[in-house]
Amino acid sequence: MTPEHELVLERTFDAPPEKVFKAWTTPDLLKQWFVPRPWTITEIRQDLRPGGESLVVMRSPEGQEFPNPGVFLEVVPDRKLVFTDAFAPGWVPTGQPFMVAEVTFEPLPGGKTKYVARAMHWTAEAKAQHEAMGFHTGWGPGAGQVAGLLPSS
Amino acid sequence: MTPEHELVLERTFDAPPEKVFKAWTTPDLLKQWFVPRPWTITEIRQDLRPGGESLVVMRSPEGQEFPNPGVFLEVVPDRKLVFTDAFAPGWVPTGQPFMVAEVTFEPLPGGKTKYVARAMHWTAEAKAQHEAMGFHTGWGPGAGQVAGLLPSS
Repeated sequence: MTPEHELVLERTFDAPPEKVFKAWTTPDLLKQWFVPRPWTITEIRQDLRPGGESLVVMRSPEGQEFPNPGVFLEVVPDRKLVFTDAFAPGWVPTGQPFMVAEVTFEPLPGGKTKYVARAMHWTAEAKAQHEAMGFHTGWGPGAGQVAGLLPSS
Repeated sequence: MTPEHELVLERTFDAPPEKVFKAWTTPDLLKQWFVPRPWTITEIRQDLRPGGESLVVMRSPEGQEFPNPGVFLEVVPDRKLVFTDAFAPGWVPTGQPFMVAEVTFEPLPGGKTKYVARAMHWTAEAKAQHEAMGFHTGWGPGAGQVAGLLPSS
C-alpha cells in the first residue's frame, strides 16, 4: 500500500549509520541538530521499544513550547525508527492522529549514510499543515552537522 | 493515561494462557469461536510481530463480508496481543482510525486464564458504533468454547 499523504526528506551524511542513529537516539545530541536555530529543544524522552514513549518539546524563538508526544512503533538498532502521535504510552488513542514518522539509516560505501525521513499523514490537511510548519527545514539538518557532532572514533 | 472511549470484556477460561493464546493465534481455531454464529469468519491473516498484518474477514448471516484489516502493535507470546486498524502494513496511515484492541491472557491458579479484551477508540462515536455492532457478544465466547477446542495435552 502506498501512503497518500507523505512528506519525504533524503540526505547523505558523511558518517556511518551507527553514528547517525546514535545522534538521533541520544537526547543531548539530538537537541543539537534536530531543529533549526533559533528554535530549540527543551525536553526529549525516548523509550526505544514498540509502545515506548517518544517526546520532543520544541521551543519557538518567542519562547512558546510545542510538545510532540507519542510512542515508538518499531525500533531496529542502527537502521530504523518509527514513531507516531496516534497513541500515548499504553497504546491509548489520543486526539486526532496526525502522522507516522519513519526514519531509516542505510549504509553507503565509504562509511556514509543515506538518511530518509518520511512523515505519513492521515489526511491531506495534516500533510499541508506539516509542510507549512517547516518539515523540510526541521527534519533536514546540514550534512556536516550530524557528522561533526560525534567523535570520529 | 486512562483511555476515554473504552469497551472491556473479561472472561475466565478453564484452560491455561498458552492454550487460549494458541486458540487466538491459530486461524483454524480462531474461526471456530471468535464470532457468534450464524456469523462466520471467511479469512484470517496474522503476521504476529509489530507492524505485521492482522486481517479478520467476517461474514454476516446474509452473506455480506466485513473485512477488519490492520496491523499488530505488540505481541507477547502467551500473554498479550495488541492490534489496530489505524495502519496498513508498512505503517501506512489508513482512513479514520477506529480502535486499538488489547487482548491479555493472565494465568490464574488451577490452570485457568483471565482473558481481558479491551477496545480503545479514538472517538465516543466509534465506541458507540462498536458497542452497537456487538462488541460484547463478538468478543466474548462462552467459557467452555475455547477450552473445548484444544486437546488437553
